[in-house]
Amino acid sequence: MPNVAVEALPADADPFTALPSYADVLAAAERIAPWIVRTPVLRSDELDEELGAAIYFKCENLQRGGAFKFRGACNAIAQLDPAARAHGVLTQSSGNHGAAIALACRLQGIAATVVVPAAAARIKRAAIARHGAEIVDCDTAQASRDAVTAEQLARTGASFVHPFNDARVIAGQGTAALELLQQQPDLDLLLAPVSGGGLLSGTALAAHGRNPAIEVFGAEPSGACDAHDSLLSHQRISGRRAETLCDGLRAELGPTTFALLQQHAAGVWLADDGATAAATRRLFEALKLVVEPSAAITWACLASQRERLRGRRIGVILSGGNLDLDRLPWQSNYS
Amino acid sequence: MPNVAVEALPADADPFTALPSYADVLAAAERIAPWIVRTPVLRSDELDEELGAAIYFKCENLQRGGAFKFRGACNAIAQLDPAARAHGVLTQSSGNHGAAIALACRLQGIAATVVVPAAAARIKRAAIARHGAEIVDCDTAQASRDAVTAEQLARTGASFVHPFNDARVIAGQGTAALELLQQQPDLDLLLAPVSGGGLLSGTALAAHGRNPAIEVFGAEPSGACDAHDSLLSHQRISGRRAETLCDGLRAELGPTTFALLQQHAAGVWLADDGATAAATRRLFEALKLVVEPSAAITWACLASQRERLRGRRIGVILSGGNLDLDRLPWQSNYS
Repeated sequence: MPNVAVEALPADADPFTALPSYADVLAAAERIAPWIVRTPVLRSDELDEELGAAIYFKCENLQRGGAFKFRGACNAIAQLDPAARAHGVLTQSSGNHGAAIALACRLQGIAATVVVPAAAARIKRAAIARHGAEIVDCDTAQASRDAVTAEQLARTGASFVHPFNDARVIAGQGTAALELLQQQPDLDLLLAPVSGGGLLSGTALAAHGRNPAIEVFGAEPSGACDAHDSLLSHQRISGRRAETLCDGLRAELGPTTFALLQQHAAGVWLADDGATAAATRRLFEALKLVVEPSAAITWACLASQRERLRGRRIGVILSGGNLDLDRLPWQSNYS
Repeated sequence: MPNVAVEALPADADPFTALPSYADVLAAAERIAPWIVRTPVLRSDELDEELGAAIYFKCENLQRGGAFKFRGACNAIAQLDPAARAHGVLTQSSGNHGAAIALACRLQGIAATVVVPAAAARIKRAAIARHGAEIVDCDTAQASRDAVTAEQLARTGASFVHPFNDARVIAGQGTAALELLQQQPDLDLLLAPVSGGGLLSGTALAAHGRNPAIEVFGAEPSGACDAHDSLLSHQRISGRRAETLCDGLRAELGPTTFALLQQHAAGVWLADDGATAAATRRLFEALKLVVEPSAAITWACLASQRERLRGRRIGVILSGGNLDLDRLPWQSNYS
């Protein structure tokens, strides 16, 4: 899913190009407090022993809509002025962002439209519909998505909320780490999945706003490792084809998130799909939580870094729990 | 699993026959605070809408050991005097109680022995072993279990901790509801699964100690409905054969729990295994929690009582999350 939609969209450019700050994360936390769940932080004796470290899991799978995405969606939508609210909100998404926009709009009394590609997972499409958004279908190719999105924007005058390359969205996603560091202040390393980079850059802003010494790492599938490669090469890579079971981690960094991660990220760790499938099962078992592979990849990455993590105090953003329960990634009927 | 072991065991009779009180629940909460997790209370917009009520799920699947059983085990063990501690603790269990005793003993530095029948689920046996208890095998027949248990008690001088018919255990289990009512004080109905009745009678003690007007119901499989029938007939039924997929709900009430439930329970609702299997999937999906059928039966019962529950404020004890992830109850390979 190459990230070419952003520049093509005739929405207000400011939230897209501005770099958000720690102050924006603090403001977002106050703004979205009426709607979000202050999710719990869970631990596991077994996982701590396995890693030889103290791990604090911030359970965004328990967020409304089953993913952290609700935070950024709420923060973006709550900043619309009355005129913009009357014209509704539009986004383009095959996953959790679409459902989060739909839910946030419903709760704030705003009409939502989501452009959904044909290849979207059945359960994610169902979630968007359940939250009351209008679904507009398009082909899976990015050109079709962008054409349909532009046409809808022109027709409705709706406000576009990008899934990650938007300062309001990034600041909202950062509130998960902000809460985690309030709930457990003495962490020295934070880990979050990275796809378009909204969650990871928000996490980094929150962490470094509180304590610049905290190391912030990303977890990324080896079959969709543009963030890893972009940070190493100091050049934003885009247009690759993602091959991973992590359906939430197929996007590529945008200009805003790349700029933030160049400043803030200590690195990106990779895991292959086999390790991620096993990690998904392990987290179901040890944490008693339903997590999607795109969240469980964090455990696969930690397990691969055991030596360097011994004795550390690690915060992990478990980003979401939306997956097909009839086709679990560790089961033989998964393909 | 007829409950005949209690009377046969030559342990100190007092904790078995005394009826615990609300004060015992309060004392237990203070006693076990250093070890237990104060588990979160979760809600679901979707489930609230489905039921037309406000439901507060107390997540004991997120307790250490993956079940509420750790509370009662901790409370019983913490009351042993130094001489008793030196001789270790013994129990008889095919499930979560054995693992809870093993874990509680390990954390308190006491030797644990668990008599485990051959028919015990593989994953529950593995949990007992993982927490460092000595496992003594026996046949599944109750006579074999009791003979092996008596022999071990005679040999070791260990203290026996019954899974439910013990005032210390009941008071410990009641701390889950006590916390729930601290976290959400305005509930008017509590629901907990019922097997031997330790959880349900502890829940009732906690509820009525705070507010006698709270209605307390049990959730029980229709294939193991001795508590339902015992309360209706005012006579404790035992010796039936349990037929249910809820492997944690196959025991029958003991004299202590029956006496408490006669005083405190407003009723017991039944659910068949088909409804419970579907409810398990529904809670995975809507709550993003791994729950075992013996916990998810609560949702099956609520759904069957929709009419009478409209507008109520309901607390539910989600008792545990230990189940075989390779054979989930809603999947076709389950048998």
